[in-house]
Amino acid sequence: MFGARYLIRALRPCSSAPCPRHKPSARLSVRDALGAQNTKGERVKVQGWIRSVRSQKEVLFLHINDGSSLESLQVVADSSFDSRELAFGSSVEVQGQLVKSPSKKQDVELKAEKIEVVGNCDAKAFPFKYKERHPLEYLRQYPHLRCRTNALGSILRVRSEATAAIHSFFKDSGFVHIHTPIITSNDCEGAGELFQVEPSSKIKVPEKNFFNVPAFLTVSGQLHLEVMSGAFTQVFTFGPTFRAENSQSRRHLAEFYMVEAEISFVESLQDLMQVMEGLFKTATMTVLSNCPEDVELCHKFIAPGQKDRLEHMLKNNFLIISYTEAIEILKQASQNFTFTPEWGVDLHTEHEKYLVKHCGNIPVFVINYPLALKPFYMRDNEDGPQHTVAAADLLVPGVGELFGGSLREERFHLLEQRLARSGLTEAYQWKRKQQQKSFRLFPQSTLWTLEKLACNLTATTFLF
Amino acid sequence: MFGARYLIRALRPCSSAPCPRHKPSARLSVRDALGAQNTKGERVKVQGWIRSVRSQKEVLFLHINDGSSLESLQVVADSSFDSRELAFGSSVEVQGQLVKSPSKKQDVELKAEKIEVVGNCDAKAFPFKYKERHPLEYLRQYPHLRCRTNALGSILRVRSEATAAIHSFFKDSGFVHIHTPIITSNDCEGAGELFQVEPSSKIKVPEKNFFNVPAFLTVSGQLHLEVMSGAFTQVFTFGPTFRAENSQSRRHLAEFYMVEAEISFVESLQDLMQVMEGLFKTATMTVLSNCPEDVELCHKFIAPGQKDRLEHMLKNNFLIISYTEAIEILKQASQNFTFTPEWGVDLHTEHEKYLVKHCGNIPVFVINYPLALKPFYMRDNEDGPQHTVAAADLLVPGVGELFGGSLREERFHLLEQRLARSGLTEAYQWKRKQQQKSFRLFPQSTLWTLEKLACNLTATTFLF
Repeated sequence: MFGARYLIRALRPCSSAPCPRHKPSARLSVRDALGAQNTKGERVKVQGWIRSVRSQKEVLFLHINDGSSLESLQVVADSSFDSRELAFGSSVEVQGQLVKSPSKKQDVELKAEKIEVVGNCDAKAFPFKYKERHPLEYLRQYPHLRCRTNALGSILRVRSEATAAIHSFFKDSGFVHIHTPIITSNDCEGAGELFQVEPSSKIKVPEKNFFNVPAFLTVSGQLHLEVMSGAFTQVFTFGPTFRAENSQSRRHLAEFYMVEAEISFVESLQDLMQVMEGLFKTATMTVLSNCPEDVELCHKFIAPGQKDRLEHMLKNNFLIISYTEAIEILKQASQNFTFTPEWGVDLHTEHEKYLVKHCGNIPVFVINYPLALKPFYMRDNEDGPQHTVAAADLLVPGVGELFGGSLREERFHLLEQRLARSGLTEAYQWKRKQQQKSFRLFPQSTLWTLEKLACNLTATTFLF
Repeated sequence: MFGARYLIRALRPCSSAPCPRHKPSARLSVRDALGAQNTKGERVKVQGWIRSVRSQKEVLFLHINDGSSLESLQVVADSSFDSRELAFGSSVEVQGQLVKSPSKKQDVELKAEKIEVVGNCDAKAFPFKYKERHPLEYLRQYPHLRCRTNALGSILRVRSEATAAIHSFFKDSGFVHIHTPIITSNDCEGAGELFQVEPSSKIKVPEKNFFNVPAFLTVSGQLHLEVMSGAFTQVFTFGPTFRAENSQSRRHLAEFYMVEAEISFVESLQDLMQVMEGLFKTATMTVLSNCPEDVELCHKFIAPGQKDRLEHMLKNNFLIISYTEAIEILKQASQNFTFTPEWGVDLHTEHEKYLVKHCGNIPVFVINYPLALKPFYMRDNEDGPQHTVAAADLLVPGVGELFGGSLREERFHLLEQRLARSGLTEAYQWKRKQQQKSFRLFPQSTLWTLEKLACNLTATTFLF
């Protein structure tokens, strides 16, 4: 039954396996078709969804989109191809020649030789209408279809490009990427807005806790990255983060993405600020250069006026003011604030907005915050009586605080004092005991690390 | 109090802010120092942790590692630099000249002009000893220090490179990256191994469910990607996935990373298998070329014999056998299996191991599985009486099943039949009602999509 001949057939290599159909024309994405140079009438195949149909006496015009770009590809066909099935929303496969377009609206068009309707769409029942711009609230009702609209398509492409640009920036700068755990037993920020994780009721587990200890969704990978920065001088993570805040605002999401980085052997805030400025500018410029049409659409309909502002931000060096200077600027302001600016009190959104406007709509680092406002681990500037720590927050026009970071306190006696003042000494000693007592939590006296490059991608997306 | 002069000082640009110390030598990572070409005695600064100290009469040799590479940089210093603080585990900053090394062991070494101990380490209390290779079980006790060992450092660098390579592969192939939600109300695989998510007891929420419906950690982004593939022809996600399996094996993790991709307009399994083979080979070759020393270490100590096997896999085309052929091969085997191979029964690990060995230790795609073994949405091959579906699983030597994928059933009447047979018709109709009744769930008749490129990175890491 089972011989050598059979075996040879069984072990056919992947790339020579029989093709189910005759050799097709080269498949091209709409983006690649639109970008084709020196079109010499190559035979190609393009697949996508019909965005518009215009039927003339002798010619039929279709616009095909496949999600690879905002722009659609114009298909020109003989009117004999016309059919009721070629409707807005239907998916088609078009084969033909890629040629130079006589129209000024596009460089390239596809002269159809074959049009196959892959899936038809009842345009009357379809919730989106041709040439109509539906409000985002309306689109929300159709989560399984809304990504076919221009607005959502552009936002998703921009997000994809921004994600890739962030990974590239860190890789090119020599950072090691770390997947910090999502399920964790620590509450890094101690803000009490945690999600707890347990096996669903379907599963019966004899122990009280599945993981032996209560488990939560991460609010920050900082503690895990700090550990890594004791072996790698530059590490980063870029993953989902969770807050159980019972709020519906755009700034308070239950699940969002955050970039976090730690650098060892840092000597000044300047080093951190350069990474932040570099990341902001590199990622923004990559998005601007890789999907200019998508950005333009956002500028046109979602964030009018952002285009010039963005270019202004990119071509200028970011500014630096101290917290003390910021409070002085706010006190001198003619504007009346709901919260009176005062040294020792946190900056509110209204203050941040005023400061970036005052700084000519260029992103500005506010540095050296009051010691009492910041966590115990930030480095003491020892500059009393207005006692500050070496922290930097980046305020960005139209966004607010986009990044935050700090140098870490490495002087053991100062750490001990601050822990004692915060009533944390016992907790810390317990932790040190856990860590074998024999070595310090931060054994490097210049392990001054970048705290948190908090980059909320949703905010970034709406910035363009 | 607050005039223009003050303002100008306040608005100093980031890049010209005063530097806290005199201009330092160029800071270099150990990796860059080791890779320096044509060293002409440049003055550089290298920071890291001491891996070895060798004190001779007139010369002191140090090896410095900063996590950027497995290899350490040799520092040569006058014996006058010697001090008790220069010990294994201490962190140092060394300034000096990068010169050609007279020894054959390395190309480059650092002639020290200044050595500063940044953080000292009590070598006696430090849990890892110089030149000792500690078992992984021992290292597990020191999660905050073990990344300083060669083994963990290498694994983390390999994982970082593999992550970057996976992102690059999809980006270069024109895929749009989608962050599919982590918290979700759907149970994609229906396997009953879900983690449920609720705000921790600290927060009081009036409603019973924080999200109005029960919320779980994602087991797969497939359903969300399928929606996206109705607008983008190529999408992928690469994020954490969760299973509440009460098992401690290396193959059953509560939290792991998985690559998933969906492609629209796919015409044959061939298209999917090419993506899988391409991803495997590209990612593997990137890792091999970017961190050869790390891979060598893994081959030497963690997975001996894998080196040749890996090269063998890379230079050969992957094989394809049908499930039916696989069962025939297993039936002809001289080996006795715990589970007797039989048509219609799933392949077990022992069967997978036999098959890859039988195929000459080249990865092999097993295609066309029995219809009854696979989910309702896989495409019917209509090849009865041994009825199969168009699915492909990739079996890899030393790993087992690494990827799985399938074409999707797009013929509505066949879908309806299979739903009815599975008793899912009502659930499906409810879902369709939810989706406005007016359009089909999968409106494209050739929306045959890549199901799941399940790539467990932990497994991949141990493959090298």
